[in-house]
Amino acid sequence: MLVTIVLFDRFTALDAVGPYDVLSSLPGAEVVFAAHAPGPVVNEKGTLRLIADAALPDIQRPDVVVVPGGPGQNAHMADEALLEWLRAADEHSAWTTSVCSGSLLLASAGLLGERRATTHWLAMDKLAGLGAVPAAERVVTDGKYMTAAGVSAGLDMALELAGKLAGEAVAQMIQLALEYDPQPPYQAGSPDTAPEAIADALRARRDSILI
Amino acid sequence: MLVTIVLFDRFTALDAVGPYDVLSSLPGAEVVFAAHAPGPVVNEKGTLRLIADAALPDIQRPDVVVVPGGPGQNAHMADEALLEWLRAADEHSAWTTSVCSGSLLLASAGLLGERRATTHWLAMDKLAGLGAVPAAERVVTDGKYMTAAGVSAGLDMALELAGKLAGEAVAQMIQLALEYDPQPPYQAGSPDTAPEAIADALRARRDSILI
Repeated sequence: MLVTIVLFDRFTALDAVGPYDVLSSLPGAEVVFAAHAPGPVVNEKGTLRLIADAALPDIQRPDVVVVPGGPGQNAHMADEALLEWLRAADEHSAWTTSVCSGSLLLASAGLLGERRATTHWLAMDKLAGLGAVPAAERVVTDGKYMTAAGVSAGLDMALELAGKLAGEAVAQMIQLALEYDPQPPYQAGSPDTAPEAIADALRARRDSILI
Repeated sequence: MLVTIVLFDRFTALDAVGPYDVLSSLPGAEVVFAAHAPGPVVNEKGTLRLIADAALPDIQRPDVVVVPGGPGQNAHMADEALLEWLRAADEHSAWTTSVCSGSLLLASAGLLGERRATTHWLAMDKLAGLGAVPAAERVVTDGKYMTAAGVSAGLDMALELAGKLAGEAVAQMIQLALEYDPQPPYQAGSPDTAPEAIADALRARRDSILI
């Protein structure tokens, strides 16, 4: 089973690495990071570089596609080479997935149509603007499309996907190996639970977070 | 504020990238990945390469040290160049921290003494064997030493640390930006909540997970 995680400049590292560490633990899975060209791809903060081992055109029939998000997503909304690759990969994929603002790229490629999908909570209106039906849920599955909310939601999505691909016992084994028993010290992970002032502060800085 | 995340061959990516995405969001933080030599460092699965931008000897006074774990940890338990760097860095650090089996490296460097600390649930006895007092908690703080349980616990630790470094409001803002509102699809993230058969299966495979 070939899993391809798409990288582009100014991606958010955890969007990609969360799902990577889950899906690469699946028996028989080969996970490949791919970008327009092989080589280092820099994240949005400019201080993390992950190596893409393959060029997108060299990967023709991935079984699973994972598109992370991050501020760099915006520069690729009309990147026809990327969007065309996504469309071609989607023709044969078993699962086409995204984390965070990666769903905006799936939508821009025309893959989501009017499906239910999710994205970072600050990008919900953008997703709606592209025709999809935004759902404020952690992980949304509609057909073979699985989309996750912001950044860290990729972990939850990948475990959900692992269960569908390899069964509940394997997914639970991966969860326990990663000791994914989350205990955040604050209850500020969603706009519904965070203090209002914190959510407002992020809304005011939305462009620097998303673009 | 200089944060150094130590990389070594066969590290676990999420151990490093979880704390990275939290700590690199702190105002004024500079986060540098460092290894014996600059260049790509490969993870335990051999399919992810993260670039170390600095050689350890070039970083002399980090404010925060983060040591991830992963199967490669074992090969460095007597790596005097690494252990000596850890001791020197610790002399001036404000915080010396670890994720997963990274705490075994801190212990091997003599930094934990008889302090309370944690590690991956499968490595608790190894931590005890090195003199530290193992605590089955998600994040353990003892003095300026903060250790996290397995892999994904680095996210919780980094948020806790962010709160201590920059205050609760900043930490909450980071949590909300990363939409860290975890909703794992299974309750299998700790040996206490996972089905007994799943925990036993991992215990039987402990060496391939940890070494």
